[in-house]
Amino acid sequence: MAAVTLTIHATDGAARTGTLATRRGPVATPAFMPVGTAGSVKGLMPGEVRELGAEIVLANTYHLHVRPGEALVRQLGGLHAFSGWEGPILTDSGGYQVFSLARRRTIDDDGVTFLDHVEGSPRRLTPESSIAIQQALGSDVMMALDDCTGAPGEREAAARAMERTRRWLARNLAARTDPGAALFGIVQGGTFDDLREESLAATAAEGFDGVALGGVSVGEGRAEVRRIVATFGPRLPAGRPRYLMGMGRPEDLVEAVASGFDMFDCVLPTRHGRTAQLFTSRGLVNVRNARYRDEAGPADPECGCPVCRRFSLAYLRHLYTAGEMLGPRAGTVHNLWFYLDLMRRMREAIAAGSFAAFRAAVLARLDEGRDREEP
Amino acid sequence: MAAVTLTIHATDGAARTGTLATRRGPVATPAFMPVGTAGSVKGLMPGEVRELGAEIVLANTYHLHVRPGEALVRQLGGLHAFSGWEGPILTDSGGYQVFSLARRRTIDDDGVTFLDHVEGSPRRLTPESSIAIQQALGSDVMMALDDCTGAPGEREAAARAMERTRRWLARNLAARTDPGAALFGIVQGGTFDDLREESLAATAAEGFDGVALGGVSVGEGRAEVRRIVATFGPRLPAGRPRYLMGMGRPEDLVEAVASGFDMFDCVLPTRHGRTAQLFTSRGLVNVRNARYRDEAGPADPECGCPVCRRFSLAYLRHLYTAGEMLGPRAGTVHNLWFYLDLMRRMREAIAAGSFAAFRAAVLARLDEGRDREEP
Repeated sequence: MAAVTLTIHATDGAARTGTLATRRGPVATPAFMPVGTAGSVKGLMPGEVRELGAEIVLANTYHLHVRPGEALVRQLGGLHAFSGWEGPILTDSGGYQVFSLARRRTIDDDGVTFLDHVEGSPRRLTPESSIAIQQALGSDVMMALDDCTGAPGEREAAARAMERTRRWLARNLAARTDPGAALFGIVQGGTFDDLREESLAATAAEGFDGVALGGVSVGEGRAEVRRIVATFGPRLPAGRPRYLMGMGRPEDLVEAVASGFDMFDCVLPTRHGRTAQLFTSRGLVNVRNARYRDEAGPADPECGCPVCRRFSLAYLRHLYTAGEMLGPRAGTVHNLWFYLDLMRRMREAIAAGSFAAFRAAVLARLDEGRDREEP
Repeated sequence: MAAVTLTIHATDGAARTGTLATRRGPVATPAFMPVGTAGSVKGLMPGEVRELGAEIVLANTYHLHVRPGEALVRQLGGLHAFSGWEGPILTDSGGYQVFSLARRRTIDDDGVTFLDHVEGSPRRLTPESSIAIQQALGSDVMMALDDCTGAPGEREAAARAMERTRRWLARNLAARTDPGAALFGIVQGGTFDDLREESLAATAAEGFDGVALGGVSVGEGRAEVRRIVATFGPRLPAGRPRYLMGMGRPEDLVEAVASGFDMFDCVLPTRHGRTAQLFTSRGLVNVRNARYRDEAGPADPECGCPVCRRFSLAYLRHLYTAGEMLGPRAGTVHNLWFYLDLMRRMREAIAAGSFAAFRAAVLARLDEGRDREEP
């Protein structure tokens, strides 16, 4: 029996809404997972993350492995007890961070060797060690280690990375000793549909609890991203959760839900919240913009979050300008609320059979692009 | 009629507990005022500050004058509407910050000219402009502008500053046009009892709504601070609130309450919270200490704050070490809770007539000095 199961309650076109059952409780899908890189969603107490509507969070295996180390986390009862987040936790494999953060990286067929970005210590990550770390953390949904070396448009590199990812699938599965922890495989292949098809066939066949689309939105351009998402969303196994990794903007999530994806994570709401860029129903608002100096209204008049209910744009602008810690926190709260509320509204629209109209209306308003800033 | 009134409910020795009635609601005394320098208690939402037990906060006139400026704050409905804090706000006069932060400062009998520390713009503060700024902010308790140039032990400088402060008293009072805003006078005079007596006589006679002891804990040594506090606390007018400005550690507050003070502010709980120094019933804990690396218990086992109920010392240490924003926020929450809970317990002990025993017990435990770190 699978460690997690997805029950679909309603579909609307390719979009679907359901419940992901995990050992730490249910998650309504489509679901957005706030990113808690180093064991906290930056600036927020766990209870606050829950109150904003999150039912599952993502933690980064690489960061926690480097600091404070999975041995300490396990000694203190696992990441749930350590961080105070009692709901399900999805951990990535650490692979993406090794390829984006670590130094002196060398990859071979067995794994990847690198110096970490904190202490410069030599470290090694293999499918076996990645799963071992994720299990030590107490992950509820683990990700298989993949090769993320493919660069946009380079077929040879994409093929090599996809091949290696495919060969590692069985090793990831074999390394799992915690039967209650789910394990998702990742489809790679860059912008090449035939490579992605090959990767998908292998990943779907291997019996993973869920299937993720990886290596998307890594510099290949918006149109190409949309094409890949629209092409492969509906082809991922329908009976298992479909996870679009590491993206994106609100409009990306709407499009991906329309293509049948169930799970999402992205640093944008938290990172942008820290840098004064707020997501609103009419697009991104750059709070530092001088036009908001004396704006008495909230960032988003339609928003019901604790920040918009309390703070004017002028006050938010003051907080960021003065370097007050409350600015980044308030921006994070607002942005997460916006993302999580968007997911809730998408679930309702799918259940009501009105997702197409919802999608068109939301995208049109987001496209007003209040400040016309690009993330 | 005074803009604020203090009703004493019980006394125990020189200590007293009561209610300060302000136009924005009552404040139980002795009261600690969290410092919200630039319009926010750093990192905390206003509702959170209230839930921690604060009934009044302090805002810094100098900082808000420099950025975003009192005109903007007034335009947006005053500091209460701007910041979302609905309870009473005490504002300082700006004088102390001019003397500690501003550049190219020159003082004359009319006021003080300086360059601000943010933009280096030339500015001038007089008793009249200080009161005007505080009123524009919507302050509920204003402080008279004083001369803070006295240095510990230098009689001539202390006398000059006290004299000027004394001469400014009437100008501060005459500048008030908002009858609902209280105005407190400040007793200066450094470490010289005769100068302080002279200052006190003038301040008490002038009909201020409350009287503050200023220029304390500015480098004159702990024993001397205690002596001044113990000497002058009981001599401040008994029928009006007595405010000990800008100090101190928990043990300082206990001693000052024993000397009859009613109101306190200090940056220590918030500033120390940001730098991983936590106040506990057994003294200061330096969370970064390696001994806490795998400490599964909370910072203070006796503490009921949201942080101690949820986070281990090991997790807090990880947050600070990893540079996670949640560390400074959690430390601030804990420290403010500790201060505000200490005030609550002091009020209860005074009401119960057991303050002497309470004081001895608390001081003995604080003196255990868990990490033996000095603030």
